Amino acid sequence: MTTDDVAAVIATNDAFYAAFEAGDLRSLLALWEQNDDVFCTHPGWPALHGWEAVRASWERIGMGPGTQQFILTDTRVRISGDLAWVTLDENLLGHRASTVTSVNVYRRQPDGRWLMVAHHGSPVMATFDH
Amino acid sequence: MTTDDVAAVIATNDAFYAAFEAGDLRSLLALWEQNDDVFCTHPGWPALHGWEAVRASWERIGMGPGTQQFILTDTRVRISGDLAWVTLDENLLGHRASTVTSVNVYRRQPDGRWLMVAHHGSPVMATFDH
Repeated sequence: MTTDDVAAVIATNDAFYAAFEAGDLRSLLALWEQNDDVFCTHPGWPALHGWEAVRASWERIGMGPGTQQFILTDTRVRISGDLAWVTLDENLLGHRASTVTSVNVYRRQPDGRWLMVAHHGSPVMATFDH
Repeated sequence: MTTDDVAAVIATNDAFYAAFEAGDLRSLLALWEQNDDVFCTHPGWPALHGWEAVRASWERIGMGPGTQQFILTDTRVRISGDLAWVTLDENLLGHRASTVTSVNVYRRQPDGRWLMVAHHGSPVMATFDH
């Protein structure tokens, strides 16, 4: 795990949340592998498997500019071979203020890009919240 | 990803839940890598990082025989290099009946064993529950 690898993974992860905050569905979906390996668990949702279900979920979430704003904290990166997992807290602002703790898994592609293969976010109970 | 690899990962995952159900803390902890790479997110908890925090959390959960009973459903295995991730639903029985959707990440060791590097369980909201 080199410094360059970590920087590339963090850049991809930052791009994911930038697209999420901007409501840029096209950019967000382009950061995923688009195959049967992928899964996505939104906070409180059951796990969704395979590209069609994952894609549809992001459309259903109804992304639009300003609907989601985060302060990301405690971002940590681990890399093992061609797989990287990033853990972080998504501190949501606004009337739905809450903390979601997430793990994002990325896989290195033959061309060197990292693409998301898993996103699992879970709500942190208020008793633990800060 | 060979059939043998998948079988070995599933056997490790089964051992994890068998130890959990049996309240066998020693066996459960022995299935983890014991270093700073590990993280564990129990349902509703913030993410815990590093072996000391992860170990302490399992002690705090107060495992004992019969305190946790699961029916595991929808178990899926993905392997990429020396990393495997297993998704499944933990359907908890008893007075705390609920569904937790989890991802468990395992890493292949030099001796061929698979050890857990991440466990992330999140509560499925009742509106999605079945």
